Amino acid sequence: MNTKKTILITNDDGYLAQGIQFLTQVMQNIANVVVVAPDSARSGAGCSITPTHPVTIKQISDNIYACSGTPVDCIKIALEKILPCKPDLVVSGINHGDNASISMHYSGTVGAVLEACMKGIPAIAYSLRTLKKNCDFSPYAEITEKWAKKVLNEGLPQDTCLNINFPETNKLYGENICRTARGLWHTEWIDAGKDEEGKNIYTLTGTFCNLEPDATDTDYWAIDHNMAAITPLKLDMTNHALINKLKQAK
Amino acid sequence: MNTKKTILITNDDGYLAQGIQFLTQVMQNIANVVVVAPDSARSGAGCSITPTHPVTIKQISDNIYACSGTPVDCIKIALEKILPCKPDLVVSGINHGDNASISMHYSGTVGAVLEACMKGIPAIAYSLRTLKKNCDFSPYAEITEKWAKKVLNEGLPQDTCLNINFPETNKLYGENICRTARGLWHTEWIDAGKDEEGKNIYTLTGTFCNLEPDATDTDYWAIDHNMAAITPLKLDMTNHALINKLKQAK
Repeated sequence: MNTKKTILITNDDGYLAQGIQFLTQVMQNIANVVVVAPDSARSGAGCSITPTHPVTIKQISDNIYACSGTPVDCIKIALEKILPCKPDLVVSGINHGDNASISMHYSGTVGAVLEACMKGIPAIAYSLRTLKKNCDFSPYAEITEKWAKKVLNEGLPQDTCLNINFPETNKLYGENICRTARGLWHTEWIDAGKDEEGKNIYTLTGTFCNLEPDATDTDYWAIDHNMAAITPLKLDMTNHALINKLKQAK
Repeated sequence: MNTKKTILITNDDGYLAQGIQFLTQVMQNIANVVVVAPDSARSGAGCSITPTHPVTIKQISDNIYACSGTPVDCIKIALEKILPCKPDLVVSGINHGDNASISMHYSGTVGAVLEACMKGIPAIAYSLRTLKKNCDFSPYAEITEKWAKKVLNEGLPQDTCLNINFPETNKLYGENICRTARGLWHTEWIDAGKDEEGKNIYTLTGTFCNLEPDATDTDYWAIDHNMAAITPLKLDMTNHALINKLKQAK
């Protein structure tokens, strides 16, 4: 009888991306793995879903499935249509590009992990601050495996998941358990002329500004200082402190 | 000199939706308005953006623009390419369908408001629990205008926005300032056969389950009891309480 645990793996760069292949190798050391990932890149998908048209699933190999939907669709469909039972852990990534600070809101890598969290499954998002297609992920193997093992064994509090971001480095200076930094994306659009109907065309780009570069308790500070940033995220976005203030002001 | 304030309006149902037309009428009572909304429905867009291909903008009338991107793209492009200066308020909706409980994570209506919040602009998402295309929005006019005026005059705390959800009713029993309820979507996929390549096809649907139906301090409870649910949301999703526990456990 196979008593190994099961890890469901996804990402937003597509099932062929180098990052998910590395993550799969690491997870195979500690559990049975099933990969259900987008059939191509879905950068910037956030928590988006596909309610307006059908989604397809193609089985690529014994334990790899490619999905035409978003990363959140991948988790939803894996849980209901592919896996025989609930996995013990969901991991997502390793994303090519960090998902620290407010970028986490736009991230399909993080979106998939929030979805797993909604379904009561412990989950970890992994991202690397690089835009290189060919990266050496080996410096991140130890921490990647360590946190997966820890969460497999100990779980996470209800409605909480982890967002882990790595700096691009040959040598990690440890890790920092930290909060999400405040940040701002600006100068985001490049004019790209007009289309045949006279509509203005724009291409999204942008410059990120860390609004609290000196805050040593943030994910951005950790990455800037060559450390892995380990940030626990919770589903509930309510500003609880404001509820009473608004009630009193009525 | 025109000293009226400016309100930027968007949604995820597209600029022609009944909900955004009603919201525009209400906002015109209190400010100058500019509408920058998707050119068609973008349900389930969450905080997604369009980094992989260009986005177009078409001017429909003096103060209405249709965008080929997501609701978040609409806010980004309005701020940088359409409005002469920062608006005083961003409102989004009124969505056809509620965005209470965890549904807020999938919502483009809420996504647009989170984006405005990231840019430091007070913002309110409005949604109505209905799937009817033709709705009578008039029961919601008073509360819609009241909160827009209040936020225009008083602002909101840093990195905080409002998520307002209405029940479908002829008579609102007031409002409840409340937190997001815990919830679960399940049984989400309908088998729709195979495509010509043999891939399995699925269509997203689902049943929502409120995990705390008796919690009177939640958005779901308020809507279930014919009240408007007013929920303050904050950008920071960090589980701050867990940071110290994880540090101690290292």
